[in-house]
Amino acid sequence: MALTGRKRSEKAGLPPGSLVYVGDTGQEATGIDIIDYTWDEIREETGVDAGDLPPYLEKESITWIDVTGLGDIAAIETIGEIFGLHPLVLEDVLNTEQRPKMEDYGETIAIILKWIGYQAGDTLVDEQISLVLGKNYVISFQERPLNVFEPVRTRIRGGAWRARRLGADYLAYALVDAVVDSYFAAMETFGEKIEAVDNALIEDPDADAIRAIQKVRRELLYLRRQIWPLREVVSSMERTESPLFADQTGVYLRDVYDHIVQVIEALETYRDMSAGMLDIYLSSTSNRMNEVMKVLTIIATIFIPLSFITGIFGMNFRFMPELAWEFGYYACLGLMAAVAIGMLAYFRKKKWI
Amino acid sequence: MALTGRKRSEKAGLPPGSLVYVGDTGQEATGIDIIDYTWDEIREETGVDAGDLPPYLEKESITWIDVTGLGDIAAIETIGEIFGLHPLVLEDVLNTEQRPKMEDYGETIAIILKWIGYQAGDTLVDEQISLVLGKNYVISFQERPLNVFEPVRTRIRGGAWRARRLGADYLAYALVDAVVDSYFAAMETFGEKIEAVDNALIEDPDADAIRAIQKVRRELLYLRRQIWPLREVVSSMERTESPLFADQTGVYLRDVYDHIVQVIEALETYRDMSAGMLDIYLSSTSNRMNEVMKVLTIIATIFIPLSFITGIFGMNFRFMPELAWEFGYYACLGLMAAVAIGMLAYFRKKKWI
Amino acid sequence: MALTGRKRSEKAGLPPGSLVYVGDTGQEATGIDIIDYTWDEIREETGVDAGDLPPYLEKESITWIDVTGLGDIAAIETIGEIFGLHPLVLEDVLNTEQRPKMEDYGETIAIILKWIGYQAGDTLVDEQISLVLGKNYVISFQERPLNVFEPVRTRIRGGAWRARRLGADYLAYALVDAVVDSYFAAMETFGEKIEAVDNALIEDPDADAIRAIQKVRRELLYLRRQIWPLREVVSSMERTESPLFADQTGVYLRDVYDHIVQVIEALETYRDMSAGMLDIYLSSTSNRMNEVMKVLTIIATIFIPLSFITGIFGMNFRFMPELAWEFGYYACLGLMAAVAIGMLAYFRKKKWI
Amino acid sequence: MALTGRKRSEKAGLPPGSLVYVGDTGQEATGIDIIDYTWDEIREETGVDAGDLPPYLEKESITWIDVTGLGDIAAIETIGEIFGLHPLVLEDVLNTEQRPKMEDYGETIAIILKWIGYQAGDTLVDEQISLVLGKNYVISFQERPLNVFEPVRTRIRGGAWRARRLGADYLAYALVDAVVDSYFAAMETFGEKIEAVDNALIEDPDADAIRAIQKVRRELLYLRRQIWPLREVVSSMERTESPLFADQTGVYLRDVYDHIVQVIEALETYRDMSAGMLDIYLSSTSNRMNEVMKVLTIIATIFIPLSFITGIFGMNFRFMPELAWEFGYYACLGLMAAVAIGMLAYFRKKKWI
Amino acid sequence: MALTGRKRSEKAGLPPGSLVYVGDTGQEATGIDIIDYTWDEIREETGVDAGDLPPYLEKESITWIDVTGLGDIAAIETIGEIFGLHPLVLEDVLNTEQRPKMEDYGETIAIILKWIGYQAGDTLVDEQISLVLGKNYVISFQERPLNVFEPVRTRIRGGAWRARRLGADYLAYALVDAVVDSYFAAMETFGEKIEAVDNALIEDPDADAIRAIQKVRRELLYLRRQIWPLREVVSSMERTESPLFADQTGVYLRDVYDHIVQVIEALETYRDMSAGMLDIYLSSTSNRMNEVMKVLTIIATIFIPLSFITGIFGMNFRFMPELAWEFGYYACLGLMAAVAIGMLAYFRKKKWI
Repeated sequence: MALTGRKRSEKAGLPPGSLVYVGDTGQEATGIDIIDYTWDEIREETGVDAGDLPPYLEKESITWIDVTGLGDIAAIETIGEIFGLHPLVLEDVLNTEQRPKMEDYGETIAIILKWIGYQAGDTLVDEQISLVLGKNYVISFQERPLNVFEPVRTRIRGGAWRARRLGADYLAYALVDAVVDSYFAAMETFGEKIEAVDNALIEDPDADAIRAIQKVRRELLYLRRQIWPLREVVSSMERTESPLFADQTGVYLRDVYDHIVQVIEALETYRDMSAGMLDIYLSSTSNRMNEVMKVLTIIATIFIPLSFITGIFGMNFRFMPELAWEFGYYACLGLMAAVAIGMLAYFRKKKWI
Repeated sequence: MALTGRKRSEKAGLPPGSLVYVGDTGQEATGIDIIDYTWDEIREETGVDAGDLPPYLEKESITWIDVTGLGDIAAIETIGEIFGLHPLVLEDVLNTEQRPKMEDYGETIAIILKWIGYQAGDTLVDEQISLVLGKNYVISFQERPLNVFEPVRTRIRGGAWRARRLGADYLAYALVDAVVDSYFAAMETFGEKIEAVDNALIEDPDADAIRAIQKVRRELLYLRRQIWPLREVVSSMERTESPLFADQTGVYLRDVYDHIVQVIEALETYRDMSAGMLDIYLSSTSNRMNEVMKVLTIIATIFIPLSFITGIFGMNFRFMPELAWEFGYYACLGLMAAVAIGMLAYFRKKKWI
Repeated sequence: MALTGRKRSEKAGLPPGSLVYVGDTGQEATGIDIIDYTWDEIREETGVDAGDLPPYLEKESITWIDVTGLGDIAAIETIGEIFGLHPLVLEDVLNTEQRPKMEDYGETIAIILKWIGYQAGDTLVDEQISLVLGKNYVISFQERPLNVFEPVRTRIRGGAWRARRLGADYLAYALVDAVVDSYFAAMETFGEKIEAVDNALIEDPDADAIRAIQKVRRELLYLRRQIWPLREVVSSMERTESPLFADQTGVYLRDVYDHIVQVIEALETYRDMSAGMLDIYLSSTSNRMNEVMKVLTIIATIFIPLSFITGIFGMNFRFMPELAWEFGYYACLGLMAAVAIGMLAYFRKKKWI
Repeated sequence: MALTGRKRSEKAGLPPGSLVYVGDTGQEATGIDIIDYTWDEIREETGVDAGDLPPYLEKESITWIDVTGLGDIAAIETIGEIFGLHPLVLEDVLNTEQRPKMEDYGETIAIILKWIGYQAGDTLVDEQISLVLGKNYVISFQERPLNVFEPVRTRIRGGAWRARRLGADYLAYALVDAVVDSYFAAMETFGEKIEAVDNALIEDPDADAIRAIQKVRRELLYLRRQIWPLREVVSSMERTESPLFADQTGVYLRDVYDHIVQVIEALETYRDMSAGMLDIYLSSTSNRMNEVMKVLTIIATIFIPLSFITGIFGMNFRFMPELAWEFGYYACLGLMAAVAIGMLAYFRKKKWI
Repeated sequence: MALTGRKRSEKAGLPPGSLVYVGDTGQEATGIDIIDYTWDEIREETGVDAGDLPPYLEKESITWIDVTGLGDIAAIETIGEIFGLHPLVLEDVLNTEQRPKMEDYGETIAIILKWIGYQAGDTLVDEQISLVLGKNYVISFQERPLNVFEPVRTRIRGGAWRARRLGADYLAYALVDAVVDSYFAAMETFGEKIEAVDNALIEDPDADAIRAIQKVRRELLYLRRQIWPLREVVSSMERTESPLFADQTGVYLRDVYDHIVQVIEALETYRDMSAGMLDIYLSSTSNRMNEVMKVLTIIATIFIPLSFITGIFGMNFRFMPELAWEFGYYACLGLMAAVAIGMLAYFRKKKWI
């Protein structure tokens, strides 16, 4: 969970469009899978060579080119040449510190997304997913193989899928929808974590609690940074004048938009919860402090006067009539008991005990 | 009061338009009631079968189809087919974790609302109410039977009702208005709770108070999440270009809009109140602490010097002239009284007692 | 000062346009006063019967119908019928929990305002004032008789008044202006109260102070809720396309607008002041606490070691050479004096005393 | 530095356009100075009588009428009549509690500005400056004689000044620019004050500090209230469609606009600084408290056990073998030293000393 | 790092367009370097005299005039005359306290930027960089020689650079891009500093920590003030209607825009981090305080009652049967042990130890 795009500065000074991988996943080997379908036919190929792609550009069928791993820059450059992509598109694909965005290049539309998930149950990671939408194809780029597009693949294979009638823009929508669906799982894990912190806070508000709250807050910041811009992306997909998006896809995009807004609202709710946590923590700490102080005060205020009395009768003056009195000792003990009881009554009246 | 749409993730991966019930009410049996009216006639039927609906679509009269309980997905699918609803409409109806929205599908307009109320006097619950407005009909879907539409039903039955002249859009307005009216009751109960917390805070600000404030705040968050989007919904109902909404309905929608704004303002006021509560709580706690500290300080600062004096004359030096002095003891007592009185005078000057 | 429109819920379920009085002033008897004027003539009537109003609608002269008290719903309904008012207008007039707004009904424009003032010097009250502007008349409704319109009446009677040339819209402006003028008085009283609290805070920051600050804050919330929407109302009066407002009235409306902005700015300044008060209060409290702690520490740290020394020489060991020393007692006193002086020097170095 | 327009309420009830002086400067005698110039000629007159102004209105030359002091209402009324000013313009000129604004009256444009400066080095004062821009003249009104326009006067006298070619709108711009320039001086003085407070805070954070911070904050509020609206004023001068402003003046107005934004940014920076001050103050106070507490704790925790030991051997039991032991006293002293050293080691381990 | 444009006030009173250097870098000698290129040719000259520039204005080739150091006002004035720059452009170039902006003067477009970097590893400095874009030239002004444009120079020299085909607007874009690239380096250094502060906070939260947090915050404020306006500048470069910007440059400008947004998001994340730091600091301090208090309370509450017991048996009453009892001393010690153990058990139950 890198909060800031550190590695970006290594690229400073290079001309725009320079193809250099920037990211933290490591350069995975590049694999190309293809699904090519029309209303009544479907063909799948895996491990395709970038050079074999040109025929798909010509065909009327919808082609989904799924590129996994960004290690082979030459192959990605070849794809760029074949599909006539703008140099900045490939730069964005390889620079995985991009923020989500949609860019309209006329012939093609590029969409940058973030997949978000918990790794090893505890570390929040994101992987950049880039989509390029053309007239009859969609190219998807993933940093490393994720299962995020598996449901879409299954649905295309299943015969009666709407997408096979609706064009490449519907396919692009389906991929975006799959990514957004992954957020719900991440939000659930996050929700469990925030509730665990909340419970720990009630049971034992110790010094670690503030750290746990901080961690939750940073994850929130991170999630917000990844998810907020997506709203704008989907909104501009919906509003775009580009002929690549058919009117009938709009209602589906609005549906994705609603899902994103739902995720964002959950985020905002969590944010308010985490703010409330700090209040609870500070006030619990302050309550404990008060309790400690009260005990000290009660013990001290009861015994300090009593000790003073013992001090008086511990003095060595030669002429102290009380000392010689036969019942002096018992009278003294009685006096001390009376003082103690009086003090306790006072504390009870003050509601301290 | 689920703060986040947890169950939503179970649907992840399904194609859009998949009809699966998502919600926390449980799948209640589905009942269909119909009120069909024109200017001079009214007909009511209860327990209608979904298959018997097609004739109502043809008729010129205004038909209100009230569907209660979302358990019978087949029946709901039948309704969808008869009235030509978009697949996403039925998905939204069944997924009761939707946020309030209005969606214009051309032939029909779908409106998602939330009914809000207190269950068992203490738990805030919401139920999703979906409306579908067509040319001469309104279909309403409720998760479980609520009395929220009873006043509308009564008014339709009463002869001279405006709605019987004004078309299906006025009926839709009346249903939305009925839902908004339910918010006023919820706000009153909430208002009583927040005042109870406020009073408890003045009388006895203990450690539970912070929890109570937190609870009130979460309910506020929850209410805001449900009610804020409604403002936008009604606003877009008013501004829509759809021919389904006649111009003369606009003034009624603005009236509902004003009611929602009134509820939202009350919410914001409560929010400021709850923020103020925390201030009061923290400062009361801090005041109590100060009071405790003062008592400790007064007791300690008076008796510590006195005890020191007793200590001096308790020493066992062989040559201590005061000890042998006949009035030494009384002089010593006098000195201690003088010290104590001096201390008390100092505290009084400092306004501590 | 009801923070939320409680009574509103009693109306829930009634159809829109139902005429029921909703408010906290009580149903005062309804009185109707009329001022009817042209450029060269003026006629006043008081205690007019609602049934006698129709002739005024026909006349070319400007008619101001001032309705005081909302007790006689029948009379108000009669006025509604005569002037062809929309049912929602009368509902808004009677429901005095409305927020300020302007509603354009084509033939007429309805304006809801709030008069604000201090009752019995201490309680903030508001009364709803509704204006209906028609082609050549203005109807004003007040919950109970206020003197707020008296200056306008005086100016109309005075011969050379601009309004007598300028039409009903100028009259409406003058009435709105009179209401806004009342805010300045309310703001002055409020300003005095907030300064009284501020001074009390400096002189003696006790536990009541936080309550006083809270009270001031709630009044601020209340004032904001009443005054903010008015800005929008006057702004929409200025921008409206309605032929009821002549262009030359625009400059006067912008003047009222500026006055409202001035009031709002004062409100915002008071809000920042009240936020600052809490800071002062908390830091004064914390300073006092520190002062108390310092005294305790100084007393305790000086006498605890001294008492320890007396304790040593109060022990009953058989072999303690110091006790037998002739100047032991004086040496001991000297040692204690040295310790005390050393301590005091240390505290002075630390700047505690 | 009156935070709220108190005196404004004295005007309540008067008709709009009533000419009454409202302000806190006192009614200074009114003086009229004139500079009349064309491309090749310049004429200055001081102490002009209001009645002598009409000829200037006719002439093609640019005339600047500088009115100082608002005491002579009759003279100001005469000016209003000669130049055909709207009644509200003169009302705004005389009511010096106006907020900055621009009002377009068609034939003339009125601009209300605030001059801001420190009086006697410490008190922030503002004086209202009103400009009226006509076809070939500018009238400026000042509450009392300020030197703010002196640089403009000097530049007009200097031969090659651009303004002599550019028309009355450029003159108006130059006057606004002169007023904005005065803000930079005020900001510098303010900046020095805020830094003095900041330094005092580091050196000795006492109870006065919070007051000083409050004072700084109020001045910030005050400055914001005066300067923020000016941004909008200059922006609307730039955007106005009025023929009184030539296109080529736009670039100069944008320059003034940038200066105002610079001042506003400095203000916002100061605001963040003052917020940070409170944090520093509170944490310094809390640090001091902790230091005091630590000293008390160390002294008390070392000597309390030691005193307990002396207490034991100060008891008068008849059978206490230690007392009779020859080296009992020295063993006891050794025990006490061991306890003290152990305590100190513990504190050192805890990093308290 | 001057937070406010202090020196600006020295210019107050001068007419707009006055050429006076305002800045903190000192007036460096002015050097002029030229790169002049077409598609197939490139010519570089260094140390050019301002008077030799006119021919470049005529030529069809793209000319980049790089002016370093603003000491020679005469030379800068000459450049202004040759290229027909508006007086305000040169004023802005010389007044290095400008905020970033774009100004369209028709024939030319002026762009004010800020280079940001750390000097001596610790002090944040900014240098103003001004660009003037004409039909076939770009003039860049730097306060002092920075390496910021070196990469651009290298790329122009390299043969196949896109810029040599694309016109002066692309060159301007490349220069802006180079400046924005410098922000990434500054952000990295800043990120390291903020993390160092964060780590120091965990290890040892002392009184200096609050100062370090304040320093980080001020740098954040400063960075925000410099970088935020740039977003608007690039956005208006993209949206401008000016023929100086070709359509195909838009996509590159959007790329720069995205970079700026990335930097701004990192800034906002840092801001939230620094806010969290204060919370951690305050709660650590408060935790330490509590720990100290607990130790004091435990020591005091254990020994105060014990000392009281020793006091009782240290009294000198003649008749105290316990003193004469043979096992009195041991019973007394046993009693004290019991009290101490009871106390410790109580504290353990309360989870204080």
